[in-house]
Amino acid sequence: MDMDEVIADTYGAHIEIYNAEFKAQLTPEKCAGKEVWHMVSEAHQDSVRKHAFRRGFFRDLKPIANSITILKQLASRHEIYIASAAMQFPNSLEEKSEWLDEHFPFIPWQNRILCGHKHILKGDILIDDRSYNLEHFGDRGILFTSPHNVHTKGFERADTWLEIGDKLR
Amino acid sequence: MDMDEVIADTYGAHIEIYNAEFKAQLTPEKCAGKEVWHMVSEAHQDSVRKHAFRRGFFRDLKPIANSITILKQLASRHEIYIASAAMQFPNSLEEKSEWLDEHFPFIPWQNRILCGHKHILKGDILIDDRSYNLEHFGDRGILFTSPHNVHTKGFERADTWLEIGDKLR
Repeated sequence: MDMDEVIADTYGAHIEIYNAEFKAQLTPEKCAGKEVWHMVSEAHQDSVRKHAFRRGFFRDLKPIANSITILKQLASRHEIYIASAAMQFPNSLEEKSEWLDEHFPFIPWQNRILCGHKHILKGDILIDDRSYNLEHFGDRGILFTSPHNVHTKGFERADTWLEIGDKLR
Repeated sequence: MDMDEVIADTYGAHIEIYNAEFKAQLTPEKCAGKEVWHMVSEAHQDSVRKHAFRRGFFRDLKPIANSITILKQLASRHEIYIASAAMQFPNSLEEKSEWLDEHFPFIPWQNRILCGHKHILKGDILIDDRSYNLEHFGDRGILFTSPHNVHTKGFERADTWLEIGDKLR
């Protein structure tokens, strides 16, 4: 499964940093259907788009609600791989590894993938917040709800990790 | 294709560091069929096994002879992915990304994979120096010769990048 917006709250971090730096009151609800940088004035877009290149950005992300508990349960019965399109952000690579060590130590290094295109991956189920990753995946794809994809149609969807737990148990 | 021992000379670097630190005269030829750490006295094995955890180890590797020229030619006609089982060495992740930027800038971030198990990868051809990666790969596997695998049998083999060029052109 994917990492950002599925087990790691990247979207929430973008909002939190933007609100703190520009004394703004953006919320995930206000952003429905958009990326965070779409929602800010043109003068601030560049700043928001560069959050992901800051040292520490990926290391400090909060885990998505219930992702740890449910994944731990699923990992005892399924072979779980974490696949993140992280090669775009070289600064994120070691931070993502450390983040997984801290929050998901039960997913060993053998089952972690930092990549670019995901259409090179095999698997039975892909859980991802990006429809373009699911489109090129041969088997069952589940769109994990994030503010930016709430209007996306045509995919099996899960809004929460509790729902994923129900689907895959 | 794989990275260490296929496009990056990890084996040579282990020998070079060991020789420099212990005033030894190990050569790749003397190591045939073995890992470098097998070839040193018991007192030095731990030191050799820890080379890969040193900062800078992966950043300073030499490219394998002709790998750049041949891969550049192949990349114009094939979709090439670099896949390295790097998650075991978190310190290597950013170094490997920088190393590819320097030596293989024509392989974009979308086509780079830092992973653990490789049996999750799809593809038509896998070039790798480790037989256990080729065993679990469904399609055509080519064993790239490295001192440690010279006695391995049962795989299509390439000794050099010029040979890879002839096979795949």
